[in-house]
Amino acid sequence: MIRFARFEDRQGLGLAIDRGEGFTALHASDDAFPGDLPALIASGVDLIEVAEAFRAAPALDIDCVHLLPPIPDPAKIICVGLNYRDHAAEGHFEIPSYPAIFARFATSLIGHGAPIVRPAISEQLDFEGEVAAIIGRGGRNIPLSEALLHVAGYSLFNDASIRDFQFRTSQWTAGKNFDATGAFGPWFVPASQLPEGAKGLRLQTRLNGIVVQDASTDDMIFDVAHQIALLSEVFTLQPGDVIVTGTPAGVGFARKPPLWMKPGDVCEIELEGLGILRNPVAQEG
Amino acid sequence: MIRFARFEDRQGLGLAIDRGEGFTALHASDDAFPGDLPALIASGVDLIEVAEAFRAAPALDIDCVHLLPPIPDPAKIICVGLNYRDHAAEGHFEIPSYPAIFARFATSLIGHGAPIVRPAISEQLDFEGEVAAIIGRGGRNIPLSEALLHVAGYSLFNDASIRDFQFRTSQWTAGKNFDATGAFGPWFVPASQLPEGAKGLRLQTRLNGIVVQDASTDDMIFDVAHQIALLSEVFTLQPGDVIVTGTPAGVGFARKPPLWMKPGDVCEIELEGLGILRNPVAQEG
Repeated sequence: MIRFARFEDRQGLGLAIDRGEGFTALHASDDAFPGDLPALIASGVDLIEVAEAFRAAPALDIDCVHLLPPIPDPAKIICVGLNYRDHAAEGHFEIPSYPAIFARFATSLIGHGAPIVRPAISEQLDFEGEVAAIIGRGGRNIPLSEALLHVAGYSLFNDASIRDFQFRTSQWTAGKNFDATGAFGPWFVPASQLPEGAKGLRLQTRLNGIVVQDASTDDMIFDVAHQIALLSEVFTLQPGDVIVTGTPAGVGFARKPPLWMKPGDVCEIELEGLGILRNPVAQEG
Repeated sequence: MIRFARFEDRQGLGLAIDRGEGFTALHASDDAFPGDLPALIASGVDLIEVAEAFRAAPALDIDCVHLLPPIPDPAKIICVGLNYRDHAAEGHFEIPSYPAIFARFATSLIGHGAPIVRPAISEQLDFEGEVAAIIGRGGRNIPLSEALLHVAGYSLFNDASIRDFQFRTSQWTAGKNFDATGAFGPWFVPASQLPEGAKGLRLQTRLNGIVVQDASTDDMIFDVAHQIALLSEVFTLQPGDVIVTGTPAGVGFARKPPLWMKPGDVCEIELEGLGILRNPVAQEG
């Protein structure tokens, strides 16, 4: 598997690439730096060729750097709600016949390892493990048959939600946009490295090591291709747009009693063949 | 009144400023160009001083250039729904006790004079005249007493909505984000040029010259200061963020029979003391 990790260390911003032999890295300050990941994706260059060029770069211990969101400032972060039947049912929502979408702002994003922050004004901090699809080539009114050609690759997302704010009005946007609640990473994997549409993969969320969500990406109501076809009827998809594709059953608010994340917890999202997004939970300082 | 208009003509991007004596303008290609409006706002420079420096710039006939949205690519476009009692009532919604917010993406933005596009897949194109507040200084957990210090200025917004898509699921985001449905302009007016919080001003929408919405900004449920205080409890507000502050009664979907905008129509939003945002309606080509 080839994977691309954006990171920051004492030398500043860098890009690390693993071609199955360990990560090698270049910093933005290096002459050979090919550009940051969002720019590479937008340029349409062959990401596998970029990875090849990293063969000669210095090795990097990925555990010793601060990982960053694969796309730090997407033009759109489009979240698809209720996209797994069992999750819609546990929340007593109707099974949607059209994607229920809402937006996140980039101010909510954090990378792998950074703390998900529980705000001072709520204790209802809930987890949602999701696959993130990152748009490569943009477009409008994209036919279903071509939809997956517009996916540059995949990552993971913890769509952590402040439930009392989410359900305070009919619109979920406030509860989905607290600063430092959208964990995104750990890295970016080009679409060619996973099954088409990231189908048939096991998606699991663990809170303090205990499995709380466990499903197959096959259980999505609208798969990635359908999401792209339907969303692009509404708006132009742009390179680097992130589609957060929905969460399966098991979320904390639907449990009796509810299970909230609290400071000191560790939440992991794992997608088969991609890796693990791990974040501790901290209290707003 | 001092007003700032972003525009484009054969010479490219420009900024025009009127200090009450007509517009004078500089292009981005001019040595004296002080920077684009979003950069000026983010820099925190005194906008009145910038305006003074335009005294020596060449005059511009604002009717002969293509006006652009005051902020073309805001980090956030935060729309506050149901923020006038009579509009909440006409849609049979409860009067909100907390702002019902949703997001627009920048792909939906157009400037003054550009056509609002009715998509091929719906005829339910509705108008919503609104005041837009543009954030100057950013912040989180902004106290109510300081909230208005964070407003750089104001503009107008037509939050044109595709109603069948808006109400297809519980989340309004799809119906609020069709390409070329968010008219934003005609210009930006620094906060010092209007009453504090843009209060007590008449807001009117006219479709083909007929008044369809007519209210006072005093009728907002959450005024601009309260919006900023409450929103900044959720996320960090950033320079250039746009808050679209809600629409009064009179929208087309609540009428019997419904009144939809159609190709050839002209929609105008007017705010007392600010100006008129005028857009024709066109069919998706």
